[in-house]
Amino acid sequence: MHSSTELDDDVRQSLIGAAHAVADAAAQITLANFRSAALQTDNKQAGGFDPVTQADRAAEQAMRAVLADLRPDDAILGEEFGPKEGTSGFMWVLDPIDGTRGYISGTPTWGTLVAVNAAHGPVFGLVDQPYTGERFAGGLGISELMRGETRTPLKTKVNTTLEASILFTTFPEIGTPNELVSFKRVAEKVRLVRYGMDCYAYALLAAGQIDLVIEAGLNAYDVAAPIAVIQAAGGTVTNWEGGPAHDGGRILAAATPELHRTALTLLKGV
Amino acid sequence: MHSSTELDDDVRQSLIGAAHAVADAAAQITLANFRSAALQTDNKQAGGFDPVTQADRAAEQAMRAVLADLRPDDAILGEEFGPKEGTSGFMWVLDPIDGTRGYISGTPTWGTLVAVNAAHGPVFGLVDQPYTGERFAGGLGISELMRGETRTPLKTKVNTTLEASILFTTFPEIGTPNELVSFKRVAEKVRLVRYGMDCYAYALLAAGQIDLVIEAGLNAYDVAAPIAVIQAAGGTVTNWEGGPAHDGGRILAAATPELHRTALTLLKGV
Repeated sequence: MHSSTELDDDVRQSLIGAAHAVADAAAQITLANFRSAALQTDNKQAGGFDPVTQADRAAEQAMRAVLADLRPDDAILGEEFGPKEGTSGFMWVLDPIDGTRGYISGTPTWGTLVAVNAAHGPVFGLVDQPYTGERFAGGLGISELMRGETRTPLKTKVNTTLEASILFTTFPEIGTPNELVSFKRVAEKVRLVRYGMDCYAYALLAAGQIDLVIEAGLNAYDVAAPIAVIQAAGGTVTNWEGGPAHDGGRILAAATPELHRTALTLLKGV
Repeated sequence: MHSSTELDDDVRQSLIGAAHAVADAAAQITLANFRSAALQTDNKQAGGFDPVTQADRAAEQAMRAVLADLRPDDAILGEEFGPKEGTSGFMWVLDPIDGTRGYISGTPTWGTLVAVNAAHGPVFGLVDQPYTGERFAGGLGISELMRGETRTPLKTKVNTTLEASILFTTFPEIGTPNELVSFKRVAEKVRLVRYGMDCYAYALLAAGQIDLVIEAGLNAYDVAAPIAVIQAAGGTVTNWEGGPAHDGGRILAAATPELHRTALTLLKGV
């Protein structure tokens, strides 16, 4: 696979253009189903029809169709369908609806995740929230929030301390009981803990709004795009052992390397 | 004070128009400060300057200025300033930024709350989320979500059961340990529990997206507008004893009277 520093500009432009086209294709389907009557009933209906899964699958099919057209030689790892092999050295990592629980609840904080991995992990990512019209982009020289015609640079906070930090996680129970204990060693020292935002929390970290996101039990397709966006904005993302996070698992994302180090030490409990 | 059924149409139009003007005035200030550089630092700075409180107070002053112009004889109860007496029988209940913790975190789920109370409680309310451009309105014959030029009727879910319910609350700890125990009697029976949405959860209930909101420790200005919006959409809001909720305290909001009864019984634990 490629390392991101050696990419020709035409490859770079091709990847970025394809990523936006993939997110656009997903948005048509996710938005059409968001807050729809079908989703307002129990999402596991008689006969096994599940409108959330239907929207998720239809969106991923649309995303894969764009890639088949624009980037046919790339591999694909998606939430809903099996992996597709590739020959180019690039792999797309797709989650059509990250935060399905938020999606079925009508909250505007789910997202469509689109990432491109090269040899050592994500090189470009989008966290797209089509209802608010926000697209957080990072990698390949880009770090910006796109909303309508507005482009806002994304930059994580600087000079932040653990005691002044805002920490986000999605589920109050975090994961296993031991993982909750580790989480609490950090949570009890920060200024504020908030819940329930799924991928939107990572976008807020990249945007310099919050300081830490700590979660467990994530999949590769949950984290690839957030990693690209946060790293491009100046933040640090690893697993709870300090290693690469793009395979998922237990995630620690921090606004600065210093804050990351402090939180990692507490998570490890050593 | 007036009962809402006896209002002349010109009074009704005056109240509705004033409510929207009040929300518009607040939005200018809340949006200008949302995700601003000043808010991205610790919100209690040296010298006591607190940008959140500054935005909150400036927004409420702008809201009160609109009312001084359009409804000078009405009373006002706001979060940030002392109560203003009135002679008209109407009282405005204002919360410029409900969900300040979400506001300082950059989440698009805080809201500006504007309600008009008559003798027996709220007769009209707005839950305004200016960043998403959503304004949830209810009372005086209105029940709709306004977004740009789009008007969507607000209607709570029907035929919903506790087992199929989506339950929202803001803080996982709810309130006192006993209040948490009561909450859990409901929470352990529902399909899904989600956290962290403040007033936006009540708006989602009115919009038929979720089934229950249960919270404790609320103030009158936290609930007046949500009550008006939810009741107009067909839902039921009381305190945990089944009595009027507009003075705040412990709140149970439900999509249907039947679901409300079921949840109330569990909260009471009798």
